[in-house]
Amino acid sequence: MTYCVGMRIKRGLVFISDTRTSAGVDNFSVSRKMFTWTVPGERKITIMTAGNLATTQSMISLLEERSKSAEERDPSILRQATMFQIARLVGTTLKEVIAASSPAGQTSEDQFRASVIVGGQIEGGQPTIFLIYPEGNFIEITEDTPFFQIGETKYGKPILVRAYDPDLSFDAAVKLLLVSFDSTVKANLGVGLPFDVEVYETDSFSSDRKKRIEATDEIFQSISANWGDALREAFRKLPSYSI
Amino acid sequence: MTYCVGMRIKRGLVFISDTRTSAGVDNFSVSRKMFTWTVPGERKITIMTAGNLATTQSMISLLEERSKSAEERDPSILRQATMFQIARLVGTTLKEVIAASSPAGQTSEDQFRASVIVGGQIEGGQPTIFLIYPEGNFIEITEDTPFFQIGETKYGKPILVRAYDPDLSFDAAVKLLLVSFDSTVKANLGVGLPFDVEVYETDSFSSDRKKRIEATDEIFQSISANWGDALREAFRKLPSYSI
Repeated sequence: MTYCVGMRIKRGLVFISDTRTSAGVDNFSVSRKMFTWTVPGERKITIMTAGNLATTQSMISLLEERSKSAEERDPSILRQATMFQIARLVGTTLKEVIAASSPAGQTSEDQFRASVIVGGQIEGGQPTIFLIYPEGNFIEITEDTPFFQIGETKYGKPILVRAYDPDLSFDAAVKLLLVSFDSTVKANLGVGLPFDVEVYETDSFSSDRKKRIEATDEIFQSISANWGDALREAFRKLPSYSI
Repeated sequence: MTYCVGMRIKRGLVFISDTRTSAGVDNFSVSRKMFTWTVPGERKITIMTAGNLATTQSMISLLEERSKSAEERDPSILRQATMFQIARLVGTTLKEVIAASSPAGQTSEDQFRASVIVGGQIEGGQPTIFLIYPEGNFIEITEDTPFFQIGETKYGKPILVRAYDPDLSFDAAVKLLLVSFDSTVKANLGVGLPFDVEVYETDSFSSDRKKRIEATDEIFQSISANWGDALREAFRKLPSYSI
């Protein structure tokens, strides 16, 4: 399992992913699920992955390789002119990797499936985020749908729905995402710390603001502990229902 | 989809179920999923069901029929001596109904599957709750697992985990369950109002305290609206995370 969220606020984009990969409770490890490509002043792209690890690693390697080998004629993630074209490239690459692992043809129950969130900004365009399905097609973030989740999405959704506000500061957005992740970590062993967090400020075309948050992180521990207390306090204030 | 919770607190038991049945977003209706049997002063049994409606209705009818026809030799829900035996009876009946609908043999992907929560008290025993699987086997509530959920369990779980307390009053327990249901209703169209709620006080052997909560219910609306505000307020008070 996995949990990743890409969120757009007025100030820019925020990405967060967990790092636990598991093939059963007796076989788990830490693996990065967030990957970034930056051309300072020109583009900043972040990809987060959920699903079959062989599929997602292969997809990232193909995207990496293509961006590095000069003689390679295939489209590169650094050569696309728009975020839409990047979403198409990632979708095509993902579909290709899954197809290569599924000799009998891809099906909706395919164990090689994976989902991807791609976000960022290219000079001349606005910052945006896409959710890419294993079939290679995708949807784009809108004002009505200001965040995408992949992986174990349910436990952490209610708080996102309730507390999201396009005017959030980056600090508040990170806090909101950490609360959502905390609820998920408490409910699904397949989602675990450390988390990778990245904040992207519109028109900065830089990837300076990122951090790996470990389980020992004091602010995260404080958010986690205080959230439990705050919830109980908020709950106490609600009107009771007598039956 | 469905959402039902059976919870044990020190004062007794609380049950709550939604009433929406759906076979797709264009085919849904209201159907009771909570059923009670009471012998005043002697026993009080509540059953809640999730899953295939034909299966659960058939199971309830069999349990009902058996309890009503005097000449019927099969075990009746009103003749079992303990809650454990009632859980066995319900499990056997459920398994039987599923088997009758699955000529090729029951499988774990069976579309005729259903899950059941059975709770109550019989004179001489303690109030307890069982979760019954489609295979007919079951688990019992404990101090470490003080509530069972069936149906769409994920959205509403974090608040239950955070705010449950064995010392809750009945009013507070109902409020907690309504908050959990509110989060679920907001996230899954397959769960909907009205809700059926029942409160059972230990050793009362009565089913006086039950209510159907409609979407127009003022206290529920107030809980729902205030919970959003309370969450946002609680969220604001948390320490921010600067990256």
